[in-house]
Amino acid sequence: MSTAPIFRRVALIGFGLIGGSIARAARAEGLASEIVTTARSEKTRARVAELGIVDRVLESNAEAVQDADLVILCIPVGACGPVAQEIAPFLKAGAIVSDVGSVKGAIVREMAPHLPQGVHFVPAHPVAGTEHSGPDSGFAELFINRWCILTPPDGTDPAAVEALRAFWAALGARVEIMTPDHHDLVLAITSHLPHLIAYTIVGTADELAQVTSSEVIKFSAGGFRDFTRIAASDPTMWRDVFLNNKEAVLEMLGTFNEDLSKLTRAIRRNDGEALFEHFTRTRAIRRGIVEIGQDSAAPDFGRPHPPLKKAE
Amino acid sequence: MSTAPIFRRVALIGFGLIGGSIARAARAEGLASEIVTTARSEKTRARVAELGIVDRVLESNAEAVQDADLVILCIPVGACGPVAQEIAPFLKAGAIVSDVGSVKGAIVREMAPHLPQGVHFVPAHPVAGTEHSGPDSGFAELFINRWCILTPPDGTDPAAVEALRAFWAALGARVEIMTPDHHDLVLAITSHLPHLIAYTIVGTADELAQVTSSEVIKFSAGGFRDFTRIAASDPTMWRDVFLNNKEAVLEMLGTFNEDLSKLTRAIRRNDGEALFEHFTRTRAIRRGIVEIGQDSAAPDFGRPHPPLKKAE
Repeated sequence: MSTAPIFRRVALIGFGLIGGSIARAARAEGLASEIVTTARSEKTRARVAELGIVDRVLESNAEAVQDADLVILCIPVGACGPVAQEIAPFLKAGAIVSDVGSVKGAIVREMAPHLPQGVHFVPAHPVAGTEHSGPDSGFAELFINRWCILTPPDGTDPAAVEALRAFWAALGARVEIMTPDHHDLVLAITSHLPHLIAYTIVGTADELAQVTSSEVIKFSAGGFRDFTRIAASDPTMWRDVFLNNKEAVLEMLGTFNEDLSKLTRAIRRNDGEALFEHFTRTRAIRRGIVEIGQDSAAPDFGRPHPPLKKAE
Repeated sequence: MSTAPIFRRVALIGFGLIGGSIARAARAEGLASEIVTTARSEKTRARVAELGIVDRVLESNAEAVQDADLVILCIPVGACGPVAQEIAPFLKAGAIVSDVGSVKGAIVREMAPHLPQGVHFVPAHPVAGTEHSGPDSGFAELFINRWCILTPPDGTDPAAVEALRAFWAALGARVEIMTPDHHDLVLAITSHLPHLIAYTIVGTADELAQVTSSEVIKFSAGGFRDFTRIAASDPTMWRDVFLNNKEAVLEMLGTFNEDLSKLTRAIRRNDGEALFEHFTRTRAIRRGIVEIGQDSAAPDFGRPHPPLKKAE
C-alpha cells in the first residue's frame, strides 16, 4: 500500500470495464480499507470472487452500500435511477454517492430525487474506455492521464467534492469540474457523435450488395478498422447514452450533416481547392491531441508491426 | 541480403510514406540490385541522400526510369497521368510500370494511354498507411500482413503480374488481384468513406460555438481521437482520391446517409430496441477484423498505458 486510504469502505455497484478498473487501481494504490462489489449475474460474481481483487462480492446492492463511505454506480446510465431508489434507504449519513456514466444531465435528473438528505451526490464521468466489457476487461492503468469530469449539483459540500477529486487523482486521472449540461454538450461532440457515426458506417458496410463482408473485413486497414473499434463498444451502455443525451446528440448531428453536405458538394463539383483546404485544417487538430498526450504519435497508434523477417 | 533480387533496377518516383517504405523493405530484403529514387523538392532529395537507403537520388523522372526493370509511381493519384506521359519515351522495353494509388479506375484511364507497347502496366494498391508523410515517415514493416491489390488490365502478360506479385509478397504483403472497378467500390467503403466522415466530424468539432477547441482536444479519448488520426492524413493525396473515385464515393455516401437517418430517427423516437439491435450487429464485424489479424485486440489498440506509479 502506497497511500493512506482515502475512504474506509468503497462500494462498487457493477464490476464491468470501469468498475473492474476502479477496483484494480484502488487496490493497487491502497485507496480504501475495504472494497465491496456487487454484480447482477451469478457467473460474474463467481468470476469476481475468483479474481480476488475485492474484499467481498455481493448480490444485494442494499447490503453492499451499508456503512460505505463512497458508493460508485458502475452500470449503464439507464439503470442508475432505479438503483439509486433501491439503495437510498441503506446509505450511511455523510456517504458520497457517485457514478461513472457518460451522460450527466439525465443522471442528475434520475438519481438526485431518490437520495436522502445528508448524503453527498457527486456525479462523475471518467473519459476512458476500451471496446471490451465484462469482469476481466478492466486494468489498473485505464485512467492514467485521462480526464475525469465531476458535475456536482449547486450547493454540494466542497469537502465531498474534494474527497472524490482526490480519489480520482489517485487513480491517475486529471480531474475537471463542470455543469452537467456543459458536460453533455462536450461529450456529444467528442464521444457520442463519433460513436453514432462509427456504428452507422460499420452497419452500412455490412449491408452492401456489391462488396462482400469478407472483403470489407480483409481490406479494413485502409481506415475502416478505426471505426470498428468504437462500434464494438457495449450495446447497452450506448443505447442508454443516446436515449439520455438525445437533445445534444441531435444538435451536433445537425451540424455534422450540414458539414457533410458541404464536402459532398465539393466532391460532386470537383472543387479540389475546397477539399484541400478542409483536409489541411483537420490535420492541425490532430497535432493538438498528440501534443497534450491524449494519443500516441507512433505510426498506426503503436499497433504491433511484426518484424520483416518472419519465421515461416 | 536474404533473397535473390527479383529486379535488377527499381525506380521509385517519389519518396514519401509509401515510396520510402518500399525502398526500406526492398533494401532490407535484397529485392533489387539497384534502387533509384526521385523527389520533386531539393530538400527531400537532400534528406533521402542523407538517409542512405537508396543507391541514387535524382531530380529527373526521365533519367530515373532509364534502364529500370520496375518503375513504381509513389505519388498522389492526380500526378500519375502527367508523370506517365513524361517518362513514357524513356522506358525500357519489357519494363513493368506500376503505382501505389488508392484509386485504380482513374489510374488506368490516366496512365495507360501514355505507355508504349512492350511495357507491362500493372497498377497496384498497398492497403497500408499511417497519418504521417515525408521522407522520414516510411518503415520497412509497413506492408507486413497488409493486402496489396493488383489490377492488371485484360491481356497483361502473366509473367509481369507474377513478378510484381512476388515483389509485394517479399515486402510482406498478401497479394490479391481484382478489376479496377471492383477495387474502387471496395475501397470506397473500407477507406474513402471512412476518411470523408472523419474529415467531416473533425471539422464540425472545430467550428462549434458552445464547446471550445481545447475542450474537444482535452476530452478526445472518448472516441473523437480515433477519427483525428485518419483526418490527419495527407491532404493532397486525399483530395485526389475523392476527385478520382467520385462515383463510388457518392454512391456509398448515399447509403450511409440513409442509415444515419434511420439511427437518428430511432434516437428521436426513443426506440431503444432498434439501437440495441444495431449496436449488437456491428460488434460482430469488429470480431471478424481482429480474428483475421487486421487489427489488435489489445485494449486501446495497444496505445501505451504508463504504469500506475509515475515518477513525479
